[in-house]
Amino acid sequence: MNQNIDASLVAGNHKPCAGYQAENFLWEVRDRVGIVTLNRPERKNPLTFASYAELRDLFQRLRYADDVKAIVVHGAGDNFCSGGDVHEIIGPLIGLKAPELLMFTRMTGDLVKAMRHCPQPIVASIDGVCAGAGAIIAMASDLRLGTSRSKTAFLFNRVGLAGCDMGACNMLPRIIGQGRASELLYTGRSLGGDEALAWGFFNRVCAPESVLSEAVKLANDLAHGPTFANGLTKTMLHQEWNMGIDEAIESEAQVQALCMLTEDFGRAYHAFAAKQKPVFEGN
Amino acid sequence: MNQNIDASLVAGNHKPCAGYQAENFLWEVRDRVGIVTLNRPERKNPLTFASYAELRDLFQRLRYADDVKAIVVHGAGDNFCSGGDVHEIIGPLIGLKAPELLMFTRMTGDLVKAMRHCPQPIVASIDGVCAGAGAIIAMASDLRLGTSRSKTAFLFNRVGLAGCDMGACNMLPRIIGQGRASELLYTGRSLGGDEALAWGFFNRVCAPESVLSEAVKLANDLAHGPTFANGLTKTMLHQEWNMGIDEAIESEAQVQALCMLTEDFGRAYHAFAAKQKPVFEGN
Amino acid sequence: MNQNIDASLVAGNHKPCAGYQAENFLWEVRDRVGIVTLNRPERKNPLTFASYAELRDLFQRLRYADDVKAIVVHGAGDNFCSGGDVHEIIGPLIGLKAPELLMFTRMTGDLVKAMRHCPQPIVASIDGVCAGAGAIIAMASDLRLGTSRSKTAFLFNRVGLAGCDMGACNMLPRIIGQGRASELLYTGRSLGGDEALAWGFFNRVCAPESVLSEAVKLANDLAHGPTFANGLTKTMLHQEWNMGIDEAIESEAQVQALCMLTEDFGRAYHAFAAKQKPVFEGN
Repeated sequence: MNQNIDASLVAGNHKPCAGYQAENFLWEVRDRVGIVTLNRPERKNPLTFASYAELRDLFQRLRYADDVKAIVVHGAGDNFCSGGDVHEIIGPLIGLKAPELLMFTRMTGDLVKAMRHCPQPIVASIDGVCAGAGAIIAMASDLRLGTSRSKTAFLFNRVGLAGCDMGACNMLPRIIGQGRASELLYTGRSLGGDEALAWGFFNRVCAPESVLSEAVKLANDLAHGPTFANGLTKTMLHQEWNMGIDEAIESEAQVQALCMLTEDFGRAYHAFAAKQKPVFEGN
Repeated sequence: MNQNIDASLVAGNHKPCAGYQAENFLWEVRDRVGIVTLNRPERKNPLTFASYAELRDLFQRLRYADDVKAIVVHGAGDNFCSGGDVHEIIGPLIGLKAPELLMFTRMTGDLVKAMRHCPQPIVASIDGVCAGAGAIIAMASDLRLGTSRSKTAFLFNRVGLAGCDMGACNMLPRIIGQGRASELLYTGRSLGGDEALAWGFFNRVCAPESVLSEAVKLANDLAHGPTFANGLTKTMLHQEWNMGIDEAIESEAQVQALCMLTEDFGRAYHAFAAKQKPVFEGN
Repeated sequence: MNQNIDASLVAGNHKPCAGYQAENFLWEVRDRVGIVTLNRPERKNPLTFASYAELRDLFQRLRYADDVKAIVVHGAGDNFCSGGDVHEIIGPLIGLKAPELLMFTRMTGDLVKAMRHCPQPIVASIDGVCAGAGAIIAMASDLRLGTSRSKTAFLFNRVGLAGCDMGACNMLPRIIGQGRASELLYTGRSLGGDEALAWGFFNRVCAPESVLSEAVKLANDLAHGPTFANGLTKTMLHQEWNMGIDEAIESEAQVQALCMLTEDFGRAYHAFAAKQKPVFEGN
């Protein structure tokens, strides 16, 4: 059975993403790995209303894509992302009324939701400045590779806002602990790369010249693993976020039984028995 | 519009705290920062029924105060707090009946609730002994500065009690992880200052002679930030404690839209555009 | 009053465990400490359908036992546990239908539930290989002592399955943080012993020749502490897993008031007043 046809029929809106033409950033797909490049290096890759919206739309589209199995997000040049552009976002927000402001904060939140709801694991490759909404995009990724010289700052209170932006008060404490998250959110101070590794915010610190290639390598490994199962790992990390242990165990029993019905499970077993490396197909 | 009159009208019980006269500890307000000094240094600053109740009442009062924007808690002399006084609290509790005991444990829990519900970030300055209810007061603070020589002990099981005291089984695992919290709560062992830093229980380790001044400096910085927004950071860290990611993102969108309506947001933007440091007013 | 009769009467199914004869692993009780030894060292102590079921049944039985006050789990030889046996478990699962698979995954999940619901703290002593369901048994323990050379791997995705096995997506993030847990669950990579200590997965790293004796010593200390209170510490760590702070504080007030009615609380106070070490009796 043709997988593409199948996915299209059952989900109703299957959309391959390999040929997607991005307008506000770079997008390419290499061997099942989608790569987002925030691409305004002269300004440290700030976000605009248009790039926020397009990122949201792309991650929503990835939810039903089956030609992309892992994603890398990084920034052109020596920086990840400087957050919402001061002139193109913050300036225009001053003086707006409640309904428009809520439309904006919901749009930014919807980007995080879309990142958490697509089945592909997301690897952030972080060098240089990673600030504001940039820090949020890093936080909302599944895995984070950084550099020693990188500086991650949840600097919302420096611009007069609360630390609760796009899920930060909910997600950051689970990654680095409540005390450390509180400090970053109350003070807006920069977290250095080595500290980020020690705190578990980064999974690895790499040299600046290799961080992107290591991120792509990691994403590629994931993209050639049991991708249906990996998508359920992501779903369950989300789903069990505030679940009791007993309910989580029952949920996982259901999901793992489903995974045991995939051929990938048999492929791994037969490869093991034949002393070979399994070739997974994501079904 | 006069802020004091306004707050008084809308909250119904505005109570300035700068002039509050404490009976069971020291209290002073310096430039928007309230400082609690547990002050029985000859006994390592134990708590009594009266000091528990007065601390609870003061933190409840701070909920509606607008003349205090951050709080420091510390102990006189070389110790933070030795917990409930053996002679003045533990002795009298022996032999009480269930209703009186529940009144006591609820009072101690109400202190933690009051600390979590006031909008001011609380910075604990911790030297020497930090034990029992003292460790809880440290845990219930937002930020913790300590010294290498400090010893933090959740020693409830050493006095025949469970580790679940004043929220410890709920809060400590979120700060230092479930495995490390389990060890401290099951064994009652002391956590040294450097270990506390490595585990994320302390935000910083300072020299004994400077820990209080660094805590006051940090509180002062927070007290001159966007304090309305910072109060919402605190509220949301509490509110999103056991919320799903999707619901948290919607809640934060609402709150951040509210913060974007404050003048502090505009003050930060205009200061940035003018290459100046913003002067926040907390509204 | 005879405690055994009392427990038998009120819980309806009191079952002493000291004399239990295990068939699929070794079980002995030494001075209130029950010791489980997974005992197929030539295969690195894999689990079988029968050993899973018997472990589940034993931990369920321990829920109502009052002759065992702490538990140690370890593996014979130089390894902890290699997880579900490839030939005796994984092979037979291939080709089963959904109902049988769910029966299996629920059985494995029930082992974790039984470990979390018995009142005895569980100390895992981990050397060598600790993989798959072995890593889960370690994770589901209360405290973990390991060795530098140990290798802990949540390797489910290596066998074509999801990382959500027996509660891993729910519990592991709370122990080591969401980012680090995500890496282990997506990649299946081994966590070395020193890294496990740095991440808070291990409470202590010991020499291979002493890890078991240190685990037994720790369990013995707990077994001679206030065991009724310690059982409630365990219950509340479970109960408050996804509870709000305010509700947790009320729950703890109720439980601690109950503990203040035990004689162990008085024993600790009187021992302190007499400058003696308390002798707890667990009531």
